[in-house]
Amino acid sequence: MVHRRRLDRLDRPGQAPSRLAVSAVHFTPGARTAWHSHSLGQTLYVTEGEGLVQSRGEAIVSVRPGEIVRTPADEWHWHGAAPDHFMTHLSMTEGDAEWGEHVTDAEYHGRATS
Amino acid sequence: MVHRRRLDRLDRPGQAPSRLAVSAVHFTPGARTAWHSHSLGQTLYVTEGEGLVQSRGEAIVSVRPGEIVRTPADEWHWHGAAPDHFMTHLSMTEGDAEWGEHVTDAEYHGRATS
Repeated sequence: MVHRRRLDRLDRPGQAPSRLAVSAVHFTPGARTAWHSHSLGQTLYVTEGEGLVQSRGEAIVSVRPGEIVRTPADEWHWHGAAPDHFMTHLSMTEGDAEWGEHVTDAEYHGRATS
Repeated sequence: MVHRRRLDRLDRPGQAPSRLAVSAVHFTPGARTAWHSHSLGQTLYVTEGEGLVQSRGEAIVSVRPGEIVRTPADEWHWHGAAPDHFMTHLSMTEGDAEWGEHVTDAEYHGRATS
């Protein structure tokens, strides 16, 4: 199965003095981001489906529509759909992202120490 | 009829260096904010119902779930539910708000020059 992630930028990045960019991101079952961090933090708002979120060194957390996930500045994390569900979230991002390695299947299924 | 507006703060305001605060705001039919502006701008994401948004000197705009409304820094505006609909939106706010006068019925119904 191909894991797809689609990003709709819902508006332009904020015009100064705003720094906010808002997107709707769609994940097919099993799809996830790579490990990454945000220089000024990121807030997610789940709108559909069921998702998974993990911060480096912490447990994988399940998220549902209406839930908010805030990731502090410079904290490494990934997010995506649960294995058997689609997931859509809004991402509200300030600043730049730094991208790292892919999330392995072992990490995604909680069988690896992250 | 009593017009109600209820604000759920979905997370704490952003911890520095983030400046983002996210809330879900619920309006009963006819309810609206007062005129106000934001020092660093505001983005709304409509999640339910039907709403109205107006920036000072511009036409009233109808908004529906999935739509994004961005208000630049220091632009005076109001938002609320349509006369016959509830409305809920996420508000994503950077910086401080400055509050002005109430939105009159004539303004709300587009019968006044704002």
